Amino acid sequence: MNSNNITKQVFTIQKSDRRRQKKHTSFVIWLTGYSGAGKSTLANGIDRRLFEKNIHSYVLDGDNVRHGLNGDLQFSDADRKENIRRVGEVSKLFVDAGIVIIAAFISPFREDRDEVRKIISPDRFIELFVDTSVQECERRDTKGLYQKARNGEVKNFPGISTEFERPLNAEITVNTENQTVEETIDYIMTQIESHLEIK
Amino acid sequence: MNSNNITKQVFTIQKSDRRRQKKHTSFVIWLTGYSGAGKSTLANGIDRRLFEKNIHSYVLDGDNVRHGLNGDLQFSDADRKENIRRVGEVSKLFVDAGIVIIAAFISPFREDRDEVRKIISPDRFIELFVDTSVQECERRDTKGLYQKARNGEVKNFPGISTEFERPLNAEITVNTENQTVEETIDYIMTQIESHLEIK
Repeated sequence: MNSNNITKQVFTIQKSDRRRQKKHTSFVIWLTGYSGAGKSTLANGIDRRLFEKNIHSYVLDGDNVRHGLNGDLQFSDADRKENIRRVGEVSKLFVDAGIVIIAAFISPFREDRDEVRKIISPDRFIELFVDTSVQECERRDTKGLYQKARNGEVKNFPGISTEFERPLNAEITVNTENQTVEETIDYIMTQIESHLEIK
Repeated sequence: MNSNNITKQVFTIQKSDRRRQKKHTSFVIWLTGYSGAGKSTLANGIDRRLFEKNIHSYVLDGDNVRHGLNGDLQFSDADRKENIRRVGEVSKLFVDAGIVIIAAFISPFREDRDEVRKIISPDRFIELFVDTSVQECERRDTKGLYQKARNGEVKNFPGISTEFERPLNAEITVNTENQTVEETIDYIMTQIESHLEIK
């Protein structure tokens, strides 16, 4: 291997090349909200709509991250912070690869969400606040976690035993209590459409 | 939001859907070898060739991982192990997203590489041994790291102060000393071609 040959013949495929290949830009849609707010349902719905438009997207959520990459982390404040940081860094790699990431994490702390915004770059980060009230989430309690939090079996539970800091300047806010899932996704799609165009 | 509506209307896009969208399967090509063996050069060359065939690929290497996701890790044995584990888990997410990952890491320990093989699934993991001798790598010493390792300024350096465990059953082995980069990439491409087909 001759190092002159290397520099002459091999160049690196850039983010801009990958975007041209995929015919759309890449960015992160970050869903934040209480446990049970509907984040994963909406994330999967957005993912399906993007797929139908032949957009290359992927969902990151507790299901595929907590048992794998972040399987070494617990639920202490420091570990929750590290959980979100790693997801931010992984999202950045996907954006570099030309993929639209839909990330669904409670991410209760403003500082952590802002940190992810910085990691990815503010113009590639869309904060989507799934603004379902904690009362409604507790009423649904699909996973029985609110009951466990009330009983003290689950510690540090946002809305019960620790705070959820509402976003102050989310790019998109949806309220799931007065419209269907499909209506909510329709609205989100109109909001992100312009972000998909290569400028 | 009605939970009956959710299950009826929203289903999750699967790995098989993403592969159909991209018209090829996804897997990991894992380049292992001494520092200076030519891993990054080959990784970028493979990436370019795949891009030209309209295959959706991405390179993971020290450049985009060590300062971001693994910026909290040092070079102790435990941290090197964790470095490789996280790259394995991130590769798994990319494979799930339908992307061909080309990972270039010294990864000197057999156990760590085997762990990644398990994380990803053995039939989706192609170990590519860049078998440039440590003598040749030290002769090139493009980054000056061998000199620093000899001087004791860099600790735990594979081939100098710590072992590099040669792969025993790598799917592909290339020797870069007697052929050009492009010839080497030609050979690699013939070896991975059949892996790209959707079966």
